[in-house]
Amino acid sequence: MADLDKLDTIVSLSKARGFIFQSSEIYGGLGAVYDYGPLGVELKRRINEMWWNSMTRKHDNIVGLDAAILMHPRVWEASGHVESFNDPMIDDRQSKMRYRADTLIEDYIYKLQKDGKEDHAKKIQEKLDTAGTRKGLNEDLYEIIQEEEIKSPDSGAFDWTEVRQFNLMFQTQFGATAKGENETVYFRPETAQGIYVNFQNVVNTSRQMVPFGIAQVGKAFRNEVVARQFVFRMREFEQMEMQYFVEPGQDEEEYKRWSEERYNWFLDLGIRPENLRMEDHPPDHLAHYAKEAADIEYHFPIGWKEVEGVHNRTDFDLSRHKEYSGKKLEYFDPQSQKRYIPYVVETSIGLDRCVLMVLCDAYRKEEVPGEKEGTTEERTVLKLHPKLAPITCGVFPLMKKPELQEPAKKLMDELSEDYKVQYDEKGSIGKRYRRLDEAGTPFCLTVDFDSLEDQTVTLRDRDSMEQERIPMDKAGEIIRKKIKEWQPEGVQ
Amino acid sequence: MADLDKLDTIVSLSKARGFIFQSSEIYGGLGAVYDYGPLGVELKRRINEMWWNSMTRKHDNIVGLDAAILMHPRVWEASGHVESFNDPMIDDRQSKMRYRADTLIEDYIYKLQKDGKEDHAKKIQEKLDTAGTRKGLNEDLYEIIQEEEIKSPDSGAFDWTEVRQFNLMFQTQFGATAKGENETVYFRPETAQGIYVNFQNVVNTSRQMVPFGIAQVGKAFRNEVVARQFVFRMREFEQMEMQYFVEPGQDEEEYKRWSEERYNWFLDLGIRPENLRMEDHPPDHLAHYAKEAADIEYHFPIGWKEVEGVHNRTDFDLSRHKEYSGKKLEYFDPQSQKRYIPYVVETSIGLDRCVLMVLCDAYRKEEVPGEKEGTTEERTVLKLHPKLAPITCGVFPLMKKPELQEPAKKLMDELSEDYKVQYDEKGSIGKRYRRLDEAGTPFCLTVDFDSLEDQTVTLRDRDSMEQERIPMDKAGEIIRKKIKEWQPEGVQ
Repeated sequence: MADLDKLDTIVSLSKARGFIFQSSEIYGGLGAVYDYGPLGVELKRRINEMWWNSMTRKHDNIVGLDAAILMHPRVWEASGHVESFNDPMIDDRQSKMRYRADTLIEDYIYKLQKDGKEDHAKKIQEKLDTAGTRKGLNEDLYEIIQEEEIKSPDSGAFDWTEVRQFNLMFQTQFGATAKGENETVYFRPETAQGIYVNFQNVVNTSRQMVPFGIAQVGKAFRNEVVARQFVFRMREFEQMEMQYFVEPGQDEEEYKRWSEERYNWFLDLGIRPENLRMEDHPPDHLAHYAKEAADIEYHFPIGWKEVEGVHNRTDFDLSRHKEYSGKKLEYFDPQSQKRYIPYVVETSIGLDRCVLMVLCDAYRKEEVPGEKEGTTEERTVLKLHPKLAPITCGVFPLMKKPELQEPAKKLMDELSEDYKVQYDEKGSIGKRYRRLDEAGTPFCLTVDFDSLEDQTVTLRDRDSMEQERIPMDKAGEIIRKKIKEWQPEGVQ
Repeated sequence: MADLDKLDTIVSLSKARGFIFQSSEIYGGLGAVYDYGPLGVELKRRINEMWWNSMTRKHDNIVGLDAAILMHPRVWEASGHVESFNDPMIDDRQSKMRYRADTLIEDYIYKLQKDGKEDHAKKIQEKLDTAGTRKGLNEDLYEIIQEEEIKSPDSGAFDWTEVRQFNLMFQTQFGATAKGENETVYFRPETAQGIYVNFQNVVNTSRQMVPFGIAQVGKAFRNEVVARQFVFRMREFEQMEMQYFVEPGQDEEEYKRWSEERYNWFLDLGIRPENLRMEDHPPDHLAHYAKEAADIEYHFPIGWKEVEGVHNRTDFDLSRHKEYSGKKLEYFDPQSQKRYIPYVVETSIGLDRCVLMVLCDAYRKEEVPGEKEGTTEERTVLKLHPKLAPITCGVFPLMKKPELQEPAKKLMDELSEDYKVQYDEKGSIGKRYRRLDEAGTPFCLTVDFDSLEDQTVTLRDRDSMEQERIPMDKAGEIIRKKIKEWQPEGVQ
């Protein structure tokens, strides 16, 4: 069930607290492109770092890579993107608006269902599912639209062009020769190919032996026609991918192992287990390159949606690059003396979706005791994993007095060696807690007059709202310990 | 003096050890675009992180941002890039090759000098320096080429087209409407504008008051005509920029302060002071937006070159965006009750150049004692700051025996919580040291038979090559201390 109010709340909070802004907002925005604000960029960097470390540090046989966004155009011929990374589009001749033909039909089916015409809906759904098997995909979709007289959602007209394929890659002219043969290059629509074309480079330089993995974080671009749902489907987005090269025959076992390991990573991130599930792709819904595939789905306010895909890509990509480049993209196993093209198990996660997931999962509105004894008030709090919190620690002097401000600033400087710290001296302590609750800050330290006597400060916990006195010079150490021991609510 | 042999050495090492590869190499490469390999990506990430922390953690009044690469096209009208981010180009009609007109003339002057025609060279240099003041830039450059009968470097022909302006921004078609009014958008040629258009968003959400700064790391793209010198001038590159907003009148003082602070940052990075210098731009060479500007230059093998620029950009950018967007890009100071457009001091550093600088500065070929008593051998070593080293620590079992492999792997797992560790059991210990010297790894730990008795291991230091026995369970702590205390050679 979609909970669009909750999505709206997250969108509002994201803007109000500086997590995510619309891109180029002062110029009216750019569709499906977003900027990360002061809190958002810190959250995104921490997720990136946790993923990177979980791959390249925790696995002796996974190395990193950072391939460029711009690649040789032949890469996208080999990968199949030039030929088939398309959406079927149809134009309304009256309004000149363009639509995805399959989405038009899906919306029509949804309307039939809402109107109680279940049988009819089922019939059309079957036709949609088998589109491409009669005349051709474009022709079959066009036929459904014509037979059902599906009208244009904006103009209400029934005056369609044919269905045509529209490629989703952004292209540009590269170089500056006068020959009129400037190269058309593409902004990569996925990061994976940067890993495949560097397979041999990594084998030659890293002393890794199959099985081994290559991990990468980077931007990709898709000219999505239907780009909506906040940062869930963007035209510019960031992927975190790991391609694991294995001997053919080992692929199914490794696919299973990686599916489990990736699922567990979300638990390490502090995501509540009841909001996670693993969905296998049925064999008749697999992409052309995949032998097996599963999605790790999160229960977003807009429903269960993919945050990560795990795919058994076989030797599809390396074989294609071998064919198109003419290079020997093979692996020679010195132990078995066998030469083969490795199979690939891919784990591919959307970093922006991951940010959205973390925000949705951490968001709470709670009834809590008010500042005055006996009263209650509502607080908004982000119960983020402390490792992910944009600001790890708030430091407050109880009052704006130099004798408290000075030690508070000194404490801030010390903690800043290891953590992002925010100093705040404005408003009541209760208000300062609330502000940092909304930013997801797990710890606040207050320097008061007792601190001057006994060198202790009050440590307040975001989740339990409990307060304790701790020695000032042990603050860093205590925070480090609390971060390590943290568990999301309800998890033992 | 250029030392092209040394640059070649660094390029070779970069490829051989997996720091930097040519992009899409198996397809013949893509001009002036590079990929970072397993060691390169770790080095780049650490420089990024050190910069980020030095900005956003060490300064209470600097926040981060991550604006998208794609921006609304009006941004680049406001910034002046659509109109004037051009190079003057000329085509050879015979070979169909295209050249930068000013570079052609510079090369011609260089040739005159080499041929001893100093007076003539000086005369042409003056004409070049004053190009644009007679008829127009294109016309004046064309006139010099015609008068001097400068020939095409490739064909030797003297058959030129006119000089025309060629915009350096990559452009693409964005969106998918059928109206034929798809927007032309640009891949940003600099990251700074993403900060300016978010100025108001940050003021509204971050509780910062002027003076404050916004820091950002991200990719930018320029269709450079003359793109060469390895990662020094790339078509796709990464910038680390901080824009500091100040009250007009405070700008000169802040410009001076930031120039110093940025210079010192390079020392913190472990760069040798004799390879660094600060060069002020003379007033008649300032960019149109700048009141004051200085370059921090590094002594690369190809000469002294800019790695970072510090600029007093005044209110140029915010004023332009105010004009073009119609939004109130002003700041209201609650204390002085003044309303104004802040001035901006910009610090802008090229991350890729920084990687190249760090590699050049760390590279040594040294005569050292050989494995056999009394012999010497040559070693290649990267004396990187331990904080930047792609692999912090090597862990070796002395021999391939389970009783040594097991504790070595356990030690590796423990250290991997905090550091990137490489386990190596192949070849002699001396060979293993050499391999990690070339990767810039500052520490190696060897588990031997004594370790089984007394729980100590041998810690070997990359720079001094000295060895000491340390308790195995204190290894992480000792490494942490050594990283903190590290100084480049010759620095007290």
